Amino acid sequence: MRVGVLTGGGDCPGLNAVIRAVVRKGVQEYGYDFTGFRDGWRGPLEGDSVRLDIAAVRGILPRGGTILGSSRTNPLKAENGIRRIKENLAKHEVEALIAIGGEDTLGVAARLTDEYGVPVVGVPKTIDNDLSATDYTFGFDTAVSIATEAIDRLHTTAESHMRVLVVEVMGRHAGWIALHSGLAGGANVILIPEQRFDLDQVCAWVTSRFKASYAPIVVVAEGAMPKDGDVVLKDGSLDSFGHVRLSGVGEWLAKEIEKRTGKEARTTVLGHVQRGGTPSAFDRWLATRFGLHAIDAVRDGDFGTMVALRGTDIVRVPLADATAKLKTVDPALYREVGVFFG
Amino acid sequence: MRVGVLTGGGDCPGLNAVIRAVVRKGVQEYGYDFTGFRDGWRGPLEGDSVRLDIAAVRGILPRGGTILGSSRTNPLKAENGIRRIKENLAKHEVEALIAIGGEDTLGVAARLTDEYGVPVVGVPKTIDNDLSATDYTFGFDTAVSIATEAIDRLHTTAESHMRVLVVEVMGRHAGWIALHSGLAGGANVILIPEQRFDLDQVCAWVTSRFKASYAPIVVVAEGAMPKDGDVVLKDGSLDSFGHVRLSGVGEWLAKEIEKRTGKEARTTVLGHVQRGGTPSAFDRWLATRFGLHAIDAVRDGDFGTMVALRGTDIVRVPLADATAKLKTVDPALYREVGVFFG
Amino acid sequence: MRVGVLTGGGDCPGLNAVIRAVVRKGVQEYGYDFTGFRDGWRGPLEGDSVRLDIAAVRGILPRGGTILGSSRTNPLKAENGIRRIKENLAKHEVEALIAIGGEDTLGVAARLTDEYGVPVVGVPKTIDNDLSATDYTFGFDTAVSIATEAIDRLHTTAESHMRVLVVEVMGRHAGWIALHSGLAGGANVILIPEQRFDLDQVCAWVTSRFKASYAPIVVVAEGAMPKDGDVVLKDGSLDSFGHVRLSGVGEWLAKEIEKRTGKEARTTVLGHVQRGGTPSAFDRWLATRFGLHAIDAVRDGDFGTMVALRGTDIVRVPLADATAKLKTVDPALYREVGVFFG
Amino acid sequence: MRVGVLTGGGDCPGLNAVIRAVVRKGVQEYGYDFTGFRDGWRGPLEGDSVRLDIAAVRGILPRGGTILGSSRTNPLKAENGIRRIKENLAKHEVEALIAIGGEDTLGVAARLTDEYGVPVVGVPKTIDNDLSATDYTFGFDTAVSIATEAIDRLHTTAESHMRVLVVEVMGRHAGWIALHSGLAGGANVILIPEQRFDLDQVCAWVTSRFKASYAPIVVVAEGAMPKDGDVVLKDGSLDSFGHVRLSGVGEWLAKEIEKRTGKEARTTVLGHVQRGGTPSAFDRWLATRFGLHAIDAVRDGDFGTMVALRGTDIVRVPLADATAKLKTVDPALYREVGVFFG
Repeated sequence: MRVGVLTGGGDCPGLNAVIRAVVRKGVQEYGYDFTGFRDGWRGPLEGDSVRLDIAAVRGILPRGGTILGSSRTNPLKAENGIRRIKENLAKHEVEALIAIGGEDTLGVAARLTDEYGVPVVGVPKTIDNDLSATDYTFGFDTAVSIATEAIDRLHTTAESHMRVLVVEVMGRHAGWIALHSGLAGGANVILIPEQRFDLDQVCAWVTSRFKASYAPIVVVAEGAMPKDGDVVLKDGSLDSFGHVRLSGVGEWLAKEIEKRTGKEARTTVLGHVQRGGTPSAFDRWLATRFGLHAIDAVRDGDFGTMVALRGTDIVRVPLADATAKLKTVDPALYREVGVFFG
Repeated sequence: MRVGVLTGGGDCPGLNAVIRAVVRKGVQEYGYDFTGFRDGWRGPLEGDSVRLDIAAVRGILPRGGTILGSSRTNPLKAENGIRRIKENLAKHEVEALIAIGGEDTLGVAARLTDEYGVPVVGVPKTIDNDLSATDYTFGFDTAVSIATEAIDRLHTTAESHMRVLVVEVMGRHAGWIALHSGLAGGANVILIPEQRFDLDQVCAWVTSRFKASYAPIVVVAEGAMPKDGDVVLKDGSLDSFGHVRLSGVGEWLAKEIEKRTGKEARTTVLGHVQRGGTPSAFDRWLATRFGLHAIDAVRDGDFGTMVALRGTDIVRVPLADATAKLKTVDPALYREVGVFFG
Repeated sequence: MRVGVLTGGGDCPGLNAVIRAVVRKGVQEYGYDFTGFRDGWRGPLEGDSVRLDIAAVRGILPRGGTILGSSRTNPLKAENGIRRIKENLAKHEVEALIAIGGEDTLGVAARLTDEYGVPVVGVPKTIDNDLSATDYTFGFDTAVSIATEAIDRLHTTAESHMRVLVVEVMGRHAGWIALHSGLAGGANVILIPEQRFDLDQVCAWVTSRFKASYAPIVVVAEGAMPKDGDVVLKDGSLDSFGHVRLSGVGEWLAKEIEKRTGKEARTTVLGHVQRGGTPSAFDRWLATRFGLHAIDAVRDGDFGTMVALRGTDIVRVPLADATAKLKTVDPALYREVGVFFG
Repeated sequence: MRVGVLTGGGDCPGLNAVIRAVVRKGVQEYGYDFTGFRDGWRGPLEGDSVRLDIAAVRGILPRGGTILGSSRTNPLKAENGIRRIKENLAKHEVEALIAIGGEDTLGVAARLTDEYGVPVVGVPKTIDNDLSATDYTFGFDTAVSIATEAIDRLHTTAESHMRVLVVEVMGRHAGWIALHSGLAGGANVILIPEQRFDLDQVCAWVTSRFKASYAPIVVVAEGAMPKDGDVVLKDGSLDSFGHVRLSGVGEWLAKEIEKRTGKEARTTVLGHVQRGGTPSAFDRWLATRFGLHAIDAVRDGDFGTMVALRGTDIVRVPLADATAKLKTVDPALYREVGVFFG
């Protein structure tokens, strides 16, 4: 049997670990052959592929990015997209497909299987950890670790009493990275997209923190919004992925805090540093186990499913369920963490 | 209400994060006062205590070790141990106790609550991750990360084809650290205490690995044992914690591999490096949430319980259950990982 | 003899290592007593001090910041500043002073010694590495390491071909951090304050890089300026240290590159992350040796001097010389590194 | 012109950075072609080579090891070694050779140039930093950083008062790594090969340290020897490089300390972890500049020389001088650092 593999969507540390695990187990235990498709759905759409064998996946476990490339190509929007994918799979004699990606990639996978009978197994991937149906996605722990290390270093300046430190982290729609890194780093304010923030409240925390001990560290997710300030942060343009472009909530927030509290504020914007480089040990473990279980699902002919983490177990869930709903930060959890604010 | 806190057993990154979370939430939300007992059960046994308030726990989140000290004192073995603890708690007006520790510490906690009516809530701690009833314990992710980073560096030498590299990691009775770091680091052989290893098999993997690609990296838990070689590794003496002293399975293994394969072998013994220093972001998150939920259990009067991780939730389980049985590596999981051996 | 110690100017990893070395050697080998003055020159000006002994400096070697606090107070601008300092030194029976700081702090030290006979020994400190008379200053290696690690992570995204990555690093007047981290990180463009950059040239490098291999990484010092673009980047306001405030050359540059090349660009602004946290091993070595030699200079009565690194030796140079001239990046060195541009 | 490049001797982070710099500058600025010889002197001896161009050196800057491989082959001991090298260079039309290596590799280079007229430029490489004629060699800073980070983590255990911690680091003949990492890590005892240690003195330091504050950390170079204990540590056998095999001074020392002081002692043996993985920013800077200057020496026809670091400058020195004498730790420097012992 020949199995196809593709990776879609944004970069995420651990993609290569999945590919390696899929190929290692598929070749060694089941005797499968593998075809890697390039750049997400663009690969099977255009028939752009590369041979994957054990030599091809050697040494890639600790490397960020993906040896298969990625893209946001949506075959459902391409002319005759589905037909072309089916033809290319047939041409390459690919009898099953493993699609590693986020909401968009898996949404396509779900429709391909359910509506068009293409045998796909999904592997969830989002650095933002906002996919329901899995406890965690790989890449998230790496991003949180990088952001936490940055916050750790800012405490030195905070202890010198002088400046408010604002750190902008990833998270357009979900505040998981902000929440986890802010908690782990001992931040004094954490702002997430799920809950519009009140600038007066933020400034009150800043002021009280200065009185209580050191200078405050404010962690803000890139998608966090003030209660009535969205106009300020969007210029209406779209980026290359069709996202509304946001212009720097971190920088904006620092200026507002300076203006209102009279305290100098400085910003750190981590940007893509959070999604690059070697995956954490946790993410390598998770990504590898996802890969090992995805190829088992292929062997079992269990298509239309996605592997997912539940506790310490890897389980299979229907692809359609998996992407039904964004997993956002529960207000109760946000309140729980709020004991450390101010 | 006044709440006592103690930490028992071996070092584990995250102990301070628990203490901080307990005190922050207890003071701010419930208005409790806190007494820290020094050196595990020795503290309440001898009445050795220190005042804990918000100032006392400031800045300790990222610090390894424990500000309260630790010990292996077992009050059940001390003369009138239980009576003295009850008297000292009464004298300090401590109405509830939070005990943070491993199998031994929590075992005492269980008996104190169940048999003597001392109101205790437990927080599980073991760097080896071998406590049942919780998905993970804090400290484990840090240890795995440190070991993985070391293995990563050894790949450079492995790529030069010349030497077998043996890495000895922690794990006397359970192979979790070896399994996770070995998988995450891309080791070629992983040996755990749960399954006696066959030296011939190890040498076969070593030899085949040299043929296939690079030199092999062998990760061995300190408690791993060859099939009939225990005599070699124990000299019969006990260490200060009453453990049978093991003398270096890593060094022994390297010598045996040299002898049998003719390939030079070198050993890295990480030792206490694995349990020191700042906790990982994951461990800080877990330890903090354990602390927040332990103080909630105190408020609810839910004594005789222990907080535990289940998926992404913190739950409460009976203390007695928690320590009933060592959580060891399941043979099926070890086989799953075995696809990467050789 | 009683010796005073103070730290002035901005944060710099290694300050505590100097203090510790001064006190350890001073107490153990020479039997001196020590007074720490708080917040730079504010301490002796206002008589704000703390006792320094071996216990006080225990454990501070790996810690960022300074246990003595810092400030930018200039006693030469304070009413009767010099007289008050002399009175406070006399009152505290301080017979010699070790001043650890940058251009401003050491400039004051030079005048105090030369014009007013206050016995001062200087220790150079600037994270920007822009003090002449010493090969390196501590803190610089730490900042370069942090920036390099960030750039390393950005390569993952660069390899995906899609985006220009701009990294803004510290350096208002000298481009040392940009030059060293850009070289070590394998950046494709490095822009420094010493040489105004030509936006067309930058865009030409960006475009050619996309053609040759991957997406480009552009490292820009915060003080770098386009050839005729200063108006854009200064809003005329001053920050709390009297510096003209710059508003984000990194963000500005990313937007200009997008506009001109049609390639999406993203920015990372490291900010204070670069000057916080634990010092690198190199900086601890350098800072400790500076401390050991500074107390030797005190013992020798060699006042008006500053310790400095020359090769692997610590030497003494006149304080006045040391601060005479900013050490900027030599055009020949910038050209040497330029082989990696584009 | 065609230039040959080879790397000899043990692994050292930074080798790839040198190769990359040599090729980048050689191709871009001087239009040279490059031949890489495999496995040190074995390459030109046997005519085993690979083409080096800009594509071949892309992405190797942060990678440990060497893309050219290495060996300890000594062509002076091979039959007709010199003649075969000259023939192979002629056959490959290689008109100049850049040899990157340590004492052995450069010793051969010196004789090839001086006695046989082969045009060689040397680049010094030793992780032990024991080559005279250069302030530092690349790889050393990386090794020191790794060892320091390990020592940092051990302080957590040291603070718990219970155990002596022994760390064995690299350094067979010179104690530079032990000295720098021990100082930077705040070790309480540092033992180096240059000075035989007195076990009674070591135990006295250990005992006094326990009294003064925490438990002691003892850093010992692998080549350090007790005053009359060499018999214990050598079993007379040779390793694959012809070195007398040492069997674990760290482990031996821990046992002796236990026996004599009654304090439990644990050992960490870092081994090859110290020489693998990505080079530090400092080492990348140094290695890159060595490469840039080595190709300049080739262009200048300045053969028989080696590049070297003097302060912040790269200079050229005669190859013969460079390897004349091992650079060991000066007793005065060891005494200077000794203020932190005990």
